[in-house]
Amino acid sequence: MSDSKTKQDYPVQNVRHFLEPGPVVLLSSRSGKETDIMTLGWHTVLEFTPSLVGCMISAGNHSHALIRTSRECVINLPTSALLDTVVGIGNCSGEHVDKFEKFSLTAASGSVVKAPMIAECHANFECKLVEDSLGDSFNFFIFEVVKAHVSPSPQKPETVHYCGDGEFMLSGKHVSRRGLFKPEML
Amino acid sequence: MSDSKTKQDYPVQNVRHFLEPGPVVLLSSRSGKETDIMTLGWHTVLEFTPSLVGCMISAGNHSHALIRTSRECVINLPTSALLDTVVGIGNCSGEHVDKFEKFSLTAASGSVVKAPMIAECHANFECKLVEDSLGDSFNFFIFEVVKAHVSPSPQKPETVHYCGDGEFMLSGKHVSRRGLFKPEML
Repeated sequence: MSDSKTKQDYPVQNVRHFLEPGPVVLLSSRSGKETDIMTLGWHTVLEFTPSLVGCMISAGNHSHALIRTSRECVINLPTSALLDTVVGIGNCSGEHVDKFEKFSLTAASGSVVKAPMIAECHANFECKLVEDSLGDSFNFFIFEVVKAHVSPSPQKPETVHYCGDGEFMLSGKHVSRRGLFKPEML
Repeated sequence: MSDSKTKQDYPVQNVRHFLEPGPVVLLSSRSGKETDIMTLGWHTVLEFTPSLVGCMISAGNHSHALIRTSRECVINLPTSALLDTVVGIGNCSGEHVDKFEKFSLTAASGSVVKAPMIAECHANFECKLVEDSLGDSFNFFIFEVVKAHVSPSPQKPETVHYCGDGEFMLSGKHVSRRGLFKPEML
């Protein structure tokens, strides 16, 4: 697991390296004194600059109101070492428990947003809500990543990808096809 | 590779099994007599019923106009056997070439939409465009999967996930945490 102290600033336009492959992430949020964490598999990169990520945050999640009210969150990237924690967080509601306490996670301070970062995650992407016109109809929200913190190692962490029915796919080997790309497509 | 003749009908509310882990997909489209194929890594599941998928389709893609005009497409799931084809499709424009012909792919007829399905892909999800209010501002489109066709084997195909810089992650092993889920979360 990672330690927030060892993380390095990371270019926000490059967060696609971590998010585009489709891992489960943990969204952390704060509104007033209340914090929450939710698991999220329904997200997509939308732009490099500004660095935009779209998330489907169901109204049934306790985090939904905290994020809409504060218009901020942190997208945290857990590795497979945190798989059972990821499942646990997704199977209880922040309405009844303090998830940082329940799952022994460390709330680290962000540089820009007031939402807490999860220190034990491999990467933390501080986000501001920039578009919510599909919030009521589709629970869809677009965030700008305004600051990124990433652990320097491992460079290719093993991530977890949800398949439904309680089953996860773990990220496998990496292969390069760089030689087949046009320079402008890289 | 798959053959469209061997594919079976698949419940549209379950396409998350294939899309939520975040694979690169191929979008195929038709407008009039013109067809196109584009690679896409920027997509997310948005709902089970109706079965909704959100896609960021850049205006720079030739497919953009075909999909907006026809309000249809097919989301095709390639396996790692098609990796070089996936890269090739993403590195040329349908404005100049017939991608089915160039990449020796078979255009199969769908059941509902007029957009062609790619027979060689593991799964084909026929889609209708249902929401495009963020089309001009964010190139973001929401589709309803109206019909799904999936090869019966392998049940867990090796998919490709784009990391940027010409590098791909291949799907790895599957692990179950079903026992840690509340029944209503499955």
